[in-house]
Amino acid sequence: MNADQLQALLYREIPLSVAMQLQVHSVSPEQLSLYAPLLPNRNLHGTAFAGSLYSLATLAGWSLLTVHVAERQWSGSVVLRHADIRYQRPVEGDLTATALFADGDSVLALAHELERRQRGRIVIPVTIAHDGKLAVSFNGEFVFHRHT
Amino acid sequence: MNADQLQALLYREIPLSVAMQLQVHSVSPEQLSLYAPLLPNRNLHGTAFAGSLYSLATLAGWSLLTVHVAERQWSGSVVLRHADIRYQRPVEGDLTATALFADGDSVLALAHELERRQRGRIVIPVTIAHDGKLAVSFNGEFVFHRHT
Repeated sequence: MNADQLQALLYREIPLSVAMQLQVHSVSPEQLSLYAPLLPNRNLHGTAFAGSLYSLATLAGWSLLTVHVAERQWSGSVVLRHADIRYQRPVEGDLTATALFADGDSVLALAHELERRQRGRIVIPVTIAHDGKLAVSFNGEFVFHRHT
Repeated sequence: MNADQLQALLYREIPLSVAMQLQVHSVSPEQLSLYAPLLPNRNLHGTAFAGSLYSLATLAGWSLLTVHVAERQWSGSVVLRHADIRYQRPVEGDLTATALFADGDSVLALAHELERRQRGRIVIPVTIAHDGKLAVSFNGEFVFHRHT
């Protein structure tokens, strides 16, 4: 799945991504970045709205896992079960969220889990930086339900 | 602050609340409910998007604390520092988030903290139910920065 295909999928299936003016910035099987401009995502302080930052982070993590399972030609669905987000400093400009797998072990553990059963879980960290400093750290626990 | 005033504030300051078609359902100093229809907030499974559920929960918690500090005639700003959200079952219809203070102690602790310094923190739980069962549980750690 390339950036254009992912963007089309998100716009077609998740109306909020259109309202956020989300753009797929880069896609690889190891790392994925999503972008959104500040204006439609601002809060009353003129900085990025906590809900927009979370939504962008969630979609980055969800997309990374969706691209990963497509690469492996596994079919199924990716859902978010639990997430934790910490806002370390305000984002006073456009939003860019970057998801990458924590380590090779978490990807291997997912593959091993899926050999034994129809679903597997993985925690995917996503970060949002502003002015070269970490602004938001997100950890999402995603579950992949494999279809037989 | 009544429901109409809160709705106007959210629509004016947070564009994503307009895209979500958020409606303020009920407001009191102890409990606050926000509603959003499924259609603009759906995901690719046809259920509520994780980011919309989070945004609604965040805005419910933020609004409850904003109404609470306005009642006490404290002026300042409310920001979200950290949040944790668990998705227990899919929301297959419209979204309603209810925020209420965990207990009187947390409200008292906030007031005591604000007697000593310019800011205080409080954790506000928000729940989203579907078909009479708990679907989403959210805990947001909010900080109130008091202006002098």
